[in-house]
Amino acid sequence: MMNIAVLVSGGGTNLQALIDAQGRGELPNGKIALVLASKPGVYALERAAKAGIPSDVLVRRDFPTQDAYDEALIGRLEAARIDLIVLAGFLTIISERVVGRFENRIINVHPSLIPSFCGEGYYGLRVHEEALRRGVKVTGATVHFVNNVCDGGPIILQRAVEVQEGDTPELLQRRVMEQAEWKLLPKAAALFCEGRLAVEGAIVHIREE
Amino acid sequence: MMNIAVLVSGGGTNLQALIDAQGRGELPNGKIALVLASKPGVYALERAAKAGIPSDVLVRRDFPTQDAYDEALIGRLEAARIDLIVLAGFLTIISERVVGRFENRIINVHPSLIPSFCGEGYYGLRVHEEALRRGVKVTGATVHFVNNVCDGGPIILQRAVEVQEGDTPELLQRRVMEQAEWKLLPKAAALFCEGRLAVEGAIVHIREE
Repeated sequence: MMNIAVLVSGGGTNLQALIDAQGRGELPNGKIALVLASKPGVYALERAAKAGIPSDVLVRRDFPTQDAYDEALIGRLEAARIDLIVLAGFLTIISERVVGRFENRIINVHPSLIPSFCGEGYYGLRVHEEALRRGVKVTGATVHFVNNVCDGGPIILQRAVEVQEGDTPELLQRRVMEQAEWKLLPKAAALFCEGRLAVEGAIVHIREE
Repeated sequence: MMNIAVLVSGGGTNLQALIDAQGRGELPNGKIALVLASKPGVYALERAAKAGIPSDVLVRRDFPTQDAYDEALIGRLEAARIDLIVLAGFLTIISERVVGRFENRIINVHPSLIPSFCGEGYYGLRVHEEALRRGVKVTGATVHFVNNVCDGGPIILQRAVEVQEGDTPELLQRRVMEQAEWKLLPKAAALFCEGRLAVEGAIVHIREE
């Protein structure tokens, strides 16, 4: 059984998608063992409580240095014997030290088809604003391993979503969440926990069951 | 009835997709009126002959200057009263003059989901090589209006295609052609001929029937 930590900063809809997938038995080899929030009072913490998942809050500015914060974060993850870290709308930067400590064990979901609309400055609603500004007819979401390049890590799964006439950034964001993010993230976590992901350079091979 | 010119440089599989769509009645307001090849002897010319479509060859190096070539190209298109120009694997550069003369009446198909894997240097198999090198799990094709930025014009239609384990550039190219290019190009031509495309800046609005 692999222990999963989900790192959150807000409402936690991606966390909920993972909790629901676990409830449906779609994470057979994984257990959501810890929810870590970047600030207190976020709704994701309530979702964790309702699902009976231990949670904690680690606020970057409570620590004098990045190193002190990193040490606390790594300590908390190691204490819970975490195998997989899922960034589910986590807005605090994950340092190179943490990435190095959990190489190819941190996954993130990004609301576009990488390499479109990604990198520095592309987060949240901004991604969808830029997609609509460019006039694309297809967008989507990507789950990838986190490395030291923003949105640059090996891609695990992607799913396309149609842009529709009359879309606003908010409408498109919601459709990308529903049709792609909430499906891809539990699927990627399940594949990881089943030991079916093999990283070879920039490529993630998915082994047959 | 709109007259369509298809500009080709090789085998002409995209031309064939348009001919087949016309044969199935899927281009009700359009007629493929002219095939123009950038060199003699290409198989696309045989496809045109078999379908009874007039064709011609215009070789850039047969003309002393770009202007002289442009004049011949524009003359040939105007003589055939062409309303829509479809670039179907046409490897000769379309100059700003020709683009200006047929503003929002030239469409091109590109074998990726623009803005991924497009721009200078991304053509043919290179597009698929780069997509595989980046490790994307979803790629696709884009039909767009041609403006003066390489692959930068307003997007008309896009379709996603899955990358599969074991893909080579050649396998992926074939799948993108079959599942996306050959479907999108006739569809975009039909929408144009039905007067259903409205360009507003970088956005192409598709009007309801």
